[in-house]
Amino acid sequence: MLAPVDPPTNKKGISIVSEDVCQQTVGRPEAFTAVENVFAAMARGDAYNFPVVREAIGHADALYGFKSGFDRAGMSLGVKSGGYWPGNAAKGLTNHQSTIILFDPDTGQIKSIVGGNYLTAVRTAASSAVSIAHLARKDAKVLGMIGAGHQSTFQLRAAVEQRDFEKVLAWNPHPKNLVRLATVCAELGLPFEAVEREQLCAEADVIITITSAFEPLLRHEWIKPGTHIACMGTDTKGKQEVDPALLVAATLFTDEIAQSISIGEAQHAVASGALKAGDITSLGDVINGDHCGRSSAEEITLFDGTGVGLQDLAVASVAVQLADERKLSSKISL
Amino acid sequence: MLAPVDPPTNKKGISIVSEDVCQQTVGRPEAFTAVENVFAAMARGDAYNFPVVREAIGHADALYGFKSGFDRAGMSLGVKSGGYWPGNAAKGLTNHQSTIILFDPDTGQIKSIVGGNYLTAVRTAASSAVSIAHLARKDAKVLGMIGAGHQSTFQLRAAVEQRDFEKVLAWNPHPKNLVRLATVCAELGLPFEAVEREQLCAEADVIITITSAFEPLLRHEWIKPGTHIACMGTDTKGKQEVDPALLVAATLFTDEIAQSISIGEAQHAVASGALKAGDITSLGDVINGDHCGRSSAEEITLFDGTGVGLQDLAVASVAVQLADERKLSSKISL
Repeated sequence: MLAPVDPPTNKKGISIVSEDVCQQTVGRPEAFTAVENVFAAMARGDAYNFPVVREAIGHADALYGFKSGFDRAGMSLGVKSGGYWPGNAAKGLTNHQSTIILFDPDTGQIKSIVGGNYLTAVRTAASSAVSIAHLARKDAKVLGMIGAGHQSTFQLRAAVEQRDFEKVLAWNPHPKNLVRLATVCAELGLPFEAVEREQLCAEADVIITITSAFEPLLRHEWIKPGTHIACMGTDTKGKQEVDPALLVAATLFTDEIAQSISIGEAQHAVASGALKAGDITSLGDVINGDHCGRSSAEEITLFDGTGVGLQDLAVASVAVQLADERKLSSKISL
Repeated sequence: MLAPVDPPTNKKGISIVSEDVCQQTVGRPEAFTAVENVFAAMARGDAYNFPVVREAIGHADALYGFKSGFDRAGMSLGVKSGGYWPGNAAKGLTNHQSTIILFDPDTGQIKSIVGGNYLTAVRTAASSAVSIAHLARKDAKVLGMIGAGHQSTFQLRAAVEQRDFEKVLAWNPHPKNLVRLATVCAELGLPFEAVEREQLCAEADVIITITSAFEPLLRHEWIKPGTHIACMGTDTKGKQEVDPALLVAATLFTDEIAQSISIGEAQHAVASGALKAGDITSLGDVINGDHCGRSSAEEITLFDGTGVGLQDLAVASVAVQLADERKLSSKISL
């Protein structure tokens, strides 16, 4: 006699959605809507992120971990697993490696496996775009980009769709990488200038920082009234992109307050006692109409985009739904 | 121009190992060796578990989460994702649902997706079996089983292979479920008796507790000298299977000390101050020869089996290796 056998799992099959299919199904509009909806669900209390696991594994200099959560409104349950392997580029692979796994909230069975590299890039871009849509002045004309890494082009493309920008200014610690952003601007027919940081701040109506900096790159006194700043690079203890005084002066918004004060851009001002959690508003409250967002043309607004697991689950859910509808997913069973 | 495209991930393909294939590849001997090796690696500091995520998600009464870790010796990196959905049985599904996902420690790319339901059962059984192999008296003749749920038959089958047992005694809160264990004993040609707990303790040389109890089922004074007890049911704050005085009196071993004192059977004696972390030895230290294990025939040994993610990764790695070798895995790419 054999040992008791469990009933077979998931007879409907598990959807496999490749990186290619993610690119075919989840464009900027789909990512924008998914991220906007999940920020709103988080602020309503319908969705929450589980504790983040992040470990230096002691092999290949890798940082590895999980972001996970449950969105009761969108019925998305799952985990993004992955991390940063600095030696990958030399092997012809992306340093950031992510996979998103979704589960059926009614049964716990695995529902889909989704390539997470492209989706992480578009959901991060959608996050700053949603902040611009809800917080930047309607008459914003000049976009400033701080940082010109791989991710910066995603931020740029999503940002320029939110306002009638007439010009893009950019700065990067390694100026030669600015060609990335210049190429995108040429494609979009937008004038592009490489400038120093102080000039960028003097002219830009909207600024996106997307760097791996560990010290402030922008000073408070450089920022002109009415600017909206989306700080997208700080997702770890110790990282920092802007002057803490700027966070104290600005009206502050974030994706998740708990993460903003612990590993986000707000960590430094909170640690020094200059800022407290109660000074920060969930962007979802603005989306839901529970907070007015920008209250004057002169106000500086700052969005601390820390990146939450629910964003990953939200875009992955869209990828699966569209891939299944268009018969672009493959099916396996466990 | 399209957005930059990442290089394709994992050209070698991702191995999919189904529940059926796990049953075909990972028997009790394979699970025993995998679990013994990973306990040894943990004690040497070559393998460690990451923080456990465990959440009551507020839907379908489900408890959901992740156990994860990295074994540098076995080069296993990954996560077991899943949880407990109490309404599943009514749908013809297992209440416990698990999936194990392995990653390449050199690149972070997803390597395999493995059904986790059967593997969780065999790795949990292997854990108490490894404890019996290393800690029970060589002349143990009577095995006592406390608990007769689905998991109990797995524990029984693995346990009886460790010593020349001549009889099995068993107790369960719902006596009719004891038929499960009686059937296995009949198959194995082992005499079986349903008894009260006190009698079980008076006769048994080895006792396995595998229940979901929240109060002590066994009293200290019932246990005879020389007994080995494997407490396998307590994996959450509040659960409890035996008298805390028994933990104080016994020589204590566990899979992971941090987990034993926080969510394992030792949590209660530690909370009352009667026990401290330093009183507990990693079973891996015994396997490695760094601790003698049982030091006398009269000593009571107790193994607090809390269940760690590295066990799941270890058995899943074996399943993938054997399934790939025997061409039983299917391959996908992301």
